[in-house]
Amino acid sequence: MSQPSPRHEIAHLGHVELLTPEPEKSLDFFVRVLGLTENGTDGDSVYLRTWDDYEHHSLKLTAAKTSGVGRTAVRASSEEALKRRVVALEERGLGVGWVDGDTGIGPTYLFRDPDGHELEVYWETERYRPPEHLRPALKNQAQAYPGRGVGVRRLDHVNYLAREAEVNGRFICDALGGRVTEQIRLDSGVISGQWTHFAQKSYDIVYTNDWTKSNGRLHHIAFATDTREDILRAADIALDNDVHIETGPHKHAIQQTFFLYLYEPGGNRIELCNPTGRLIFAPDWEPVTWTEAERAKGQAWGLKTIESFHTHGTPPVE
Amino acid sequence: MSQPSPRHEIAHLGHVELLTPEPEKSLDFFVRVLGLTENGTDGDSVYLRTWDDYEHHSLKLTAAKTSGVGRTAVRASSEEALKRRVVALEERGLGVGWVDGDTGIGPTYLFRDPDGHELEVYWETERYRPPEHLRPALKNQAQAYPGRGVGVRRLDHVNYLAREAEVNGRFICDALGGRVTEQIRLDSGVISGQWTHFAQKSYDIVYTNDWTKSNGRLHHIAFATDTREDILRAADIALDNDVHIETGPHKHAIQQTFFLYLYEPGGNRIELCNPTGRLIFAPDWEPVTWTEAERAKGQAWGLKTIESFHTHGTPPVE
Amino acid sequence: MSQPSPRHEIAHLGHVELLTPEPEKSLDFFVRVLGLTENGTDGDSVYLRTWDDYEHHSLKLTAAKTSGVGRTAVRASSEEALKRRVVALEERGLGVGWVDGDTGIGPTYLFRDPDGHELEVYWETERYRPPEHLRPALKNQAQAYPGRGVGVRRLDHVNYLAREAEVNGRFICDALGGRVTEQIRLDSGVISGQWTHFAQKSYDIVYTNDWTKSNGRLHHIAFATDTREDILRAADIALDNDVHIETGPHKHAIQQTFFLYLYEPGGNRIELCNPTGRLIFAPDWEPVTWTEAERAKGQAWGLKTIESFHTHGTPPVE
Amino acid sequence: MSQPSPRHEIAHLGHVELLTPEPEKSLDFFVRVLGLTENGTDGDSVYLRTWDDYEHHSLKLTAAKTSGVGRTAVRASSEEALKRRVVALEERGLGVGWVDGDTGIGPTYLFRDPDGHELEVYWETERYRPPEHLRPALKNQAQAYPGRGVGVRRLDHVNYLAREAEVNGRFICDALGGRVTEQIRLDSGVISGQWTHFAQKSYDIVYTNDWTKSNGRLHHIAFATDTREDILRAADIALDNDVHIETGPHKHAIQQTFFLYLYEPGGNRIELCNPTGRLIFAPDWEPVTWTEAERAKGQAWGLKTIESFHTHGTPPVE
Repeated sequence: MSQPSPRHEIAHLGHVELLTPEPEKSLDFFVRVLGLTENGTDGDSVYLRTWDDYEHHSLKLTAAKTSGVGRTAVRASSEEALKRRVVALEERGLGVGWVDGDTGIGPTYLFRDPDGHELEVYWETERYRPPEHLRPALKNQAQAYPGRGVGVRRLDHVNYLAREAEVNGRFICDALGGRVTEQIRLDSGVISGQWTHFAQKSYDIVYTNDWTKSNGRLHHIAFATDTREDILRAADIALDNDVHIETGPHKHAIQQTFFLYLYEPGGNRIELCNPTGRLIFAPDWEPVTWTEAERAKGQAWGLKTIESFHTHGTPPVE
Repeated sequence: MSQPSPRHEIAHLGHVELLTPEPEKSLDFFVRVLGLTENGTDGDSVYLRTWDDYEHHSLKLTAAKTSGVGRTAVRASSEEALKRRVVALEERGLGVGWVDGDTGIGPTYLFRDPDGHELEVYWETERYRPPEHLRPALKNQAQAYPGRGVGVRRLDHVNYLAREAEVNGRFICDALGGRVTEQIRLDSGVISGQWTHFAQKSYDIVYTNDWTKSNGRLHHIAFATDTREDILRAADIALDNDVHIETGPHKHAIQQTFFLYLYEPGGNRIELCNPTGRLIFAPDWEPVTWTEAERAKGQAWGLKTIESFHTHGTPPVE
Repeated sequence: MSQPSPRHEIAHLGHVELLTPEPEKSLDFFVRVLGLTENGTDGDSVYLRTWDDYEHHSLKLTAAKTSGVGRTAVRASSEEALKRRVVALEERGLGVGWVDGDTGIGPTYLFRDPDGHELEVYWETERYRPPEHLRPALKNQAQAYPGRGVGVRRLDHVNYLAREAEVNGRFICDALGGRVTEQIRLDSGVISGQWTHFAQKSYDIVYTNDWTKSNGRLHHIAFATDTREDILRAADIALDNDVHIETGPHKHAIQQTFFLYLYEPGGNRIELCNPTGRLIFAPDWEPVTWTEAERAKGQAWGLKTIESFHTHGTPPVE
Repeated sequence: MSQPSPRHEIAHLGHVELLTPEPEKSLDFFVRVLGLTENGTDGDSVYLRTWDDYEHHSLKLTAAKTSGVGRTAVRASSEEALKRRVVALEERGLGVGWVDGDTGIGPTYLFRDPDGHELEVYWETERYRPPEHLRPALKNQAQAYPGRGVGVRRLDHVNYLAREAEVNGRFICDALGGRVTEQIRLDSGVISGQWTHFAQKSYDIVYTNDWTKSNGRLHHIAFATDTREDILRAADIALDNDVHIETGPHKHAIQQTFFLYLYEPGGNRIELCNPTGRLIFAPDWEPVTWTEAERAKGQAWGLKTIESFHTHGTPPVE
């Protein structure tokens, strides 16, 4: 069989497609409350971007019958890396095939993770050129800071639900060259959550076991802010805008991320997160494994993990 | 002659009228960039409010031939205090008379400081009742946080230019019950700046000597933010919106305020300030007097005071 | 009977005496973890100061058989105010008498609130003169910032437990000139908590009903930090120093204070708090009354109030 | 000749050796003011570590006749990468040879950049095991947060002075696999500064032209803090500890880093920096080139670059 993939084949998470049964309300949430900027439409979808994104869009919001995650895009580190990844995906029987990409990206290779989530990998991309009114004052920035709502900086990570987190985390490592930075091992030996990353950012794609034994569902997608103060303010903004706050702000023990969890109007869980400078430098980083007993202590400063955090996923299941 | 006034006769600064030769651009600045909320109009004036103001408005923006400060309103601590202040003002020959106040306040007594700035003192006021879309989630807050631009919390202070700061600072103390918390004494013995306050906030009305020997001019008005991070972000927002940053962000040695100075499109200097928790508790606080040598060290962390800070005032003079 | 007292008779909270059965560990907590500075001893007591305190000390830590609060000191606004307060206290039959004060303050008048907590009111005080190694760079600051642990800025408030909060809150208003800014009214009509203040700071002395029907107990004392970031960092510091975090960081709905609750080694609850700029300006502020239903929503951003918050007080009772 | 090196051969900056003619005062600065932790000595050197460093030390402070930078260590991404780098360095004639490394690292290959700065590259390293009193509460952290002084998180970057920045920046790219993220091009066409990086962090090694035409000198080394608030607080701490503040806090236009520049007692310039979340994701990032005219605008928010920033380097030259 195939070998584990070398590192640095995937440069970064590109964008994510989110499905919503409440497209107008969800759009208002992402634009007015989170501060994303619209950048075109395509059928039932609206393209949205964070101000620090050098590409066309960070989020594709698609009207649908129910909630959940659509396609997740990752950008290869080079054209050769893309070709190598296609080979690796086909070897594993998880490739779907080449398709034309969304607006802003070139040819893209569709595939599925073992749990069935749809992903794509691409190399060609269109560098974002802001219109006059969004031109930033500093030329090393993609777009002017919008000064609206939370003003999130970038799409930070995707956290999928999966029947078996470990199988999928291993796939990210073996087929895409990711590495596991942290994980949860239950007393039964089952790995119930795995955090994988592609470079110095400490996680990009996360898998958590789905208690419903469903496939292809979403736990949350996350947007990063510049500061923890932005997250505290976000909680005020959520409150005044009748956005459901599930839990936080608080600090995760795992990855030490400062977090706030919201539900967007379509029902999908959205995390606002700030890593406060945490990066993984060691090329031989050993995954940190948390036990059930450690997890029982709650989050970093003692907040008990809220029940719905273990039971709410999208789309909802019976 | 009359006695110095007892303390606590004036509760707080109410609102300020600012004159602008660029009313549309100034309005856009206050609404979109600083995040104030419109609350009605009156002739050539627009009423604007900060989200933490329990009264009708914090700023009255008036179209005029040139820039500068119009009328400044202070609220008395009680109806009796108002009557006592009127007596004290009339004794000093600086009273103008009773007039009907702006929208939102009751009868108001007009007066002038020795330098000629127009002020008013009032007791009756209309408590702000937000419309549905501005209703705050927490009932101990005046208005929902607007989530727009800088999102300033309140009008913080007014800094007048005057031919003789000391005469005017003394007037605030003697006629209104203020106290001097800090001041600058030049080597010549001249007091070139005086910071006066009414309660625990460490300053409310400031006088700085006008090098042009003019009367009735403005150095700046200031709005307070919740955090220093808000001020750092404000600098980004100013930059992306082509708002002139005069100096900062930095920390003043005097009063230790974290500051950013902008020019609004009408030419008036606007300070964004954060006191980082500083309050004056001692009822027998001795004014802190800064010497020329101490001032020559620049601001708290060493920033040299920019030349225009000593030369720009509004309205401009030949 | 006597009239309600005029406002502004009390300038501010002076200092608090805390009792601890673990004097060495408690001292280490206040010095190394919170960053207070020792300023002399007296018998079984150690005087400790926050860096922004203009007086001799903010906290008197006294070795004792059990935990709890000792004497709380408030400073009068003037010598005349002190005399008037003594008359008012004696009229109410709650005066104890004049005693020599702690180091740093002059003659002090001892009294008790209706619940039996011991307080004192004084006028004369010794302005703090820092030794060379604690001399601040800026002359408008009491002491150099210690750069140790949390680095709390000032003693912020005292929250007593009492059999009947309302009786005691009324006493603070009637005898000392305080005002109620916020309160909780149970469905039964009972006021279960009252927040009183003396000037612009929105609360200084708080009473909460003691479910044990005991007298004279303490819910917590609080120290203010400069920023919310200081409180987030404090949670890390507490964690690494095995200090029990009871709840937080989060934002109170009442008063909107950003908070973290710790237990110091002697068992007393200590709040670290940041008001983020909140001040009460209206001289005719109407108390905000929270209902049981509103309280059931938890803290500002939804955190459920932890059970021990309602059951832990010091000293412990059977 | 040899080919440009592939990316990701160097994982990160390991540690830097700083020379000081005032070893005791410099040690006090790094331990008490910046909050580093001692971790052993070696002859005239003291090893110091930041709390987030997974290796033995971040800084080697060596007593010397004058100031300046000693050896800079970079860690290879794998043993094979190390071997490949040695070949590449030898091909370029800049290799010195294998030596035993400092405490905590294995065999290390010594080399020089074209300007003569001494560097080393290594693979084997000893993971830091904290003693009991420095054990962190969270197992995914290297060491407990020290709660002392500024509390810097990590060594962030080294900024060398060089006769020709461009030659040296190209060397970092060609021999070590770095990439240029930003640079300054003078009107004459000369590249006067180049910022190079190894992974997502936007710069690790920087070269600035030395106006004295000397070789091997240092502009500054930088430590990163968790937040911008830490940098604002650092300025207060510097002030109270008589540490010279050269400039800042402010935001660089280049790289958008929030900065504060200090001189440690030995004369070396130390930057405290916070990237506020900035990372480089694009694998095909095009270097941002700043012109003289753009640089003349000063730093991001308009602060003029202080003269000494262009003239002070270590060791001093006639």
